[in-house]
Formats: sequence, C-alpha cells, structure tokens
Amino acid sequence: MLIVFISKKNMKAIKVIEDNLVISETPVPLPGDDEVLIKVKAAGINRADIAQRKGLYPPPPGASEILGLECSGIIESVGKNVSARQPGDEVIALLGGGGYGEYVTCPQFHTLYKPANLNWVEAASIPEVYATCWLNLFMEASMKEGDKVVFHAGASGIGTAGIQLAKAFGCESFVSAGSKNKIDMCINLGASDGEVRSRDIFSKIKSWAPDGVDIILDPVGAEYFESNLNVLGIEGRLVIIGLMSGAKTSLNLGHLMIKRQRIIGSTIRARNVETKNIVMEELSQKVLPLFKSGELIPIIHSTYPLSESEKAHEIMEANENIGKIILTLD
Amino acid sequence: MLIVFISKKNMKAIKVIEDNLVISETPVPLPGDDEVLIKVKAAGINRADIAQRKGLYPPPPGASEILGLECSGIIESVGKNVSARQPGDEVIALLGGGGYGEYVTCPQFHTLYKPANLNWVEAASIPEVYATCWLNLFMEASMKEGDKVVFHAGASGIGTAGIQLAKAFGCESFVSAGSKNKIDMCINLGASDGEVRSRDIFSKIKSWAPDGVDIILDPVGAEYFESNLNVLGIEGRLVIIGLMSGAKTSLNLGHLMIKRQRIIGSTIRARNVETKNIVMEELSQKVLPLFKSGELIPIIHSTYPLSESEKAHEIMEANENIGKIILTLD
Repeated sequence: MLIVFISKKNMKAIKVIEDNLVISETPVPLPGDDEVLIKVKAAGINRADIAQRKGLYPPPPGASEILGLECSGIIESVGKNVSARQPGDEVIALLGGGGYGEYVTCPQFHTLYKPANLNWVEAASIPEVYATCWLNLFMEASMKEGDKVVFHAGASGIGTAGIQLAKAFGCESFVSAGSKNKIDMCINLGASDGEVRSRDIFSKIKSWAPDGVDIILDPVGAEYFESNLNVLGIEGRLVIIGLMSGAKTSLNLGHLMIKRQRIIGSTIRARNVETKNIVMEELSQKVLPLFKSGELIPIIHSTYPLSESEKAHEIMEANENIGKIILTLD
Repeated sequence: MLIVFISKKNMKAIKVIEDNLVISETPVPLPGDDEVLIKVKAAGINRADIAQRKGLYPPPPGASEILGLECSGIIESVGKNVSARQPGDEVIALLGGGGYGEYVTCPQFHTLYKPANLNWVEAASIPEVYATCWLNLFMEASMKEGDKVVFHAGASGIGTAGIQLAKAFGCESFVSAGSKNKIDMCINLGASDGEVRSRDIFSKIKSWAPDGVDIILDPVGAEYFESNLNVLGIEGRLVIIGLMSGAKTSLNLGHLMIKRQRIIGSTIRARNVETKNIVMEELSQKVLPLFKSGELIPIIHSTYPLSESEKAHEIMEANENIGKIILTLD
C-alpha cells in the first residue's frame, strides 16, 4: 500500500495513545481553498478536549483528529480563495480540532485579528469560550439588557467569559462553583452573587431572583435540570451546553407551558462553517473592541508547554482552575 | 351588603354551573380606557374552553370569567384612550375570555378589521387559531421557507390553520389525525402527507422527512414527546401547545444537545397586552391579506346558537370536528 502524506513537512503535535497525550511527529496539514494555515503560538484547553481524549466526543466529519478547539498564532500560508487574510497576520482562531500542534488549518473567517494589547497566551484564551458564550447567550437565548443570568461552573473558562459579557451588556449574573475562593473570584469579575456547589445553590438563586431567572447556561445537565427549571422565570431560557452529571432526566411539560420556557440543546463545534462565520463576525464587531478597551480581560489560570499537555488536563479534570489553561508552542 | 353592577344593562351570556353551560343574565361589561366594547356576532370554540369549563384552566388575572377566546362583531363603544377604533367598526377579536356572551371587551389592538369577503361565522374562526399559529410557528419557532412542519391533531382549528399558513409561506407539512377522512381533508388543504393516530405515525414521519423535521406543533404532550424528539432534525423546534395526553415525561439531554434542538412551552392567553398587540399587528399585515385574496380559507365544521353551547362542546370533546365550531349570536 502506498501512503501519501498530505505535506512533505512534519510537525510536532499531541496524539492520544491509550488515553495518554504523547508528543508525536505528524505531517503539517495543507489548507483547503478557503482555509488558512496557522503557525500556532498558544492553544486553549477545553473540557471537550478531555471528553475527546476519552473517546466520548469524536471530532465532527472533516475535522482534525488532533485535540484543540482554539489557538493564537501567525498565518503561514493561505488557500487559493482566501482574500481576507495573508501570511504574517497575527490571529486568534476557532478550530474544529488541531490546536495541540505546531500548525493548524481553519476557514479564513474563523480567524480574527489578535488584539494588539494581548499576548499570545491571553489571545488564545478567547475564541472558544467567547464564541460559545456569544452563540448561546445572544443568538440562542436572546440575552438583553436587564436579564438575570445564572452560570453554573462560574469559574470555568465559559463562566469567567459569561460573567464579563453579561456585565458588559447590562445583565446581572449569579454563579455556582466548587469553592468559596472561586465564588469570590467570580464576584470580583462582575457576578452579583454566587453559591458553593456543595450548598443549596437553588434556594440562593431563588432569593437572588424572586421573579425567576431569565437565562441559565448549564454544563451540568441531569442533576440540575429540574431545579434549573424551577428557578427559571416566565419565558426563561435554559441552555444545555454540557452533561457533566449525565443526560437522563424527567420533565414536566405543564410547568414548561405555563411558564412559556425554552430548553435549548447547544454545541458549537458541529455547527456549519457559515454559522461559525457569523459568530466570529459578531465577536469581531462587539467583543474584541471590549478586549482592546480593557473592559473584558482574559482570565488565565496557568500555562504549560505542549509537551506537558497531560499535566494541563489533570489540572482541569481536578477542577482546580479558575479561568483558562493554555498550552504554549514556539 | 350592597351589590353594585358594573353596568346598568344586562346581557345574555353562558355561565358554567356544575359543568353545565347555562344561558344566564349578566351585566354588560364596561370597556377600560384602552378597550373597546364589542357586540358579538359569532364566537369561536376552542379546546381551552373545555378545560376552563372543567376547572382545569382558570382565566388569567383580569380576564372575564365567561368562556370564549375569540369573536367577530361590531364595536359598540370605546374607552377614552381609544383612537384606532370607533363604534360601528366590524372587527374580529382575540379575547382573554368573554366570547360566549352578547357583549365583550378587549384592548383596542386585539381587534382587527373583519375582511369584507368573510361572513361573521367565518371571521370568528380566525383570531385564536391564527394568532396561536403565528406566534408559535413564526415568533417562537422561527419558521422559514422550506421548513418541514408536523401538525399533530391536524384537523383541529389550529391544525387546519397551520397547514394553510405553512403552505402559504413555502413550507411542507405532515399531519396526524383521528381518521382517514380527516387526513384526506388536511391533504386537500395543503398538507403533504399524514397518518391516522391509531397507526405508526412516527415511522411515517421518518419516511417523509428522513433528515428530520424542522418544527413540530404539538397539543398532545407526554405520549408523543420522545417520539417527537426522535423525528426532529438538527436544530429542530418542538413547540408544546397542549397536554391532551399528560405532562410528565422523560428527556435525554444528550440527544437534545447533539441535535441542538429546542423544546418550547407556549400558551397565548396569559401573554401580556403588548405581545398580543404585536401578534395581531403581524396577522393584520401578513395573514388577513391572504384571507382577502382567498389563499387562506376559514374551515368551519358547524355552527350552533349560543343557547346550544353545550352541544358544541360535545362535538369537540368527541373529536368529531374538522376545523372550527362556531357559536352564533344575534
């Protein structure tokens, strides 16, 4: 059998070998006609990477098998239809996969110019969590000024982004998190209030929003489901973005009807190129300027070189982090 | 104790006395400052009226205790802030209650001018079902050209309105209904296909829409819930508008997330005045012209004088009707 490599040049990237993250040699990918090739400077770690490593979250068709959903870096080359980016551009990118490698490809409009006031690590923390928050808060849940929003896992990358976005757009937020220290950090970032996960989160939410919450962004799933609906107000929106506690639950449709509530299942990775183009364009217009002005700040927990990806995953699996864990490449 | 009547004049209206519908004398209501008083010519019957008669669906705060969610009629008098309507106007009206009486009040913008080519009975069949369909298909479920839509209880007032609206706006529909005769009627109205309720509805839907349905408008609830989600496609919307089979069900949040589906609980009656104003304005702009042109047609099953309201309810409870049952007054 003849094996044809997709590029003559090799690069270092992380491969998953029996649940271990191993630095390996692999061909540099070639950009498609509408894609760019990015030399990665830093890559964000996301909980989805852990699920993918464990075989629970296979990459969508066409995506790289290599882990990694976001990066910062410099455009190395572009496909023949690419007109909006050129080699040398410093960008951040939302990826279908491939961030844990020296080079990665993605559609040109899934990259945005890196804000000049952020370093590579800070910039790499933005794409996945802000695209996820923007998509779910604004496009799925129609967040508007004055809304009361709950972020479960408030100290996560998504949580710390959501709290800041909610505040920037005139909304109040409540967080749940694993420790008093995390809650304090979230309140410093702009959350109105919060409660530690081991205590009675939902009665505290009820006191915080006696007329009901407008939006809940929930990565927890089954365990919180009925309590979430109980604290959600009239025309409230529950957006399910993760299933850390499982997927099977029960539902009272009468409650849902009387309160005219919505339950929305959402993931960003499997969406088509056009939808992601729209999300990234909105980030470019409405969110990146707030990073440039300093109203939004990247929350970085720690950084590790690519070779220590496994250590980085351990920190996230232990829920030790407040904000993002970032891999560095050079 | 001194009893003060709200008007010196009395009228005939239906009262619920121990589950019976009894013609009674009651004071003519007085319109509020932003309301009109309508002399009712015809009133539509809705399934919600039966639930209310049985004590299962109490009227929202401030609404008339008298049954009846829609009517046609002539404006008799107007409140002091009313500028858009005047006595003598022939209108149709979306009501919070009170249609089963000689006179009824409602906010001025919950009335629309009666299309001149429709008689009183035909006109009375429009407001509740078309407002419900418009709200749920377009405003809640974002229906767009090319969508595939399922209407359960396709021969009902809502169903026969939904089929026609879907067709008029470039969408295909599938119906379930209680008999072959009803399915045929729905297909004549514009449905693409359908299946009788006693047979395997959902495998037929699966064949009709192998890539999944975009929208399901469902008055059935628990019994159909999991099957509905199974035939719903990527980014599909399930709108729950009734609970004929009950409310308690189970839900797999993983399925909902992977398919990025939405479950939407919806009722129109309890919405605020402003939301109903918006719905009625959209009906005025986008739906009534289609009645004037004959593209939409009222589907009337039968008419009964007000004094035979109980007979009219029996027909609906036996699921005998195709389209609307209307009460006439004069």
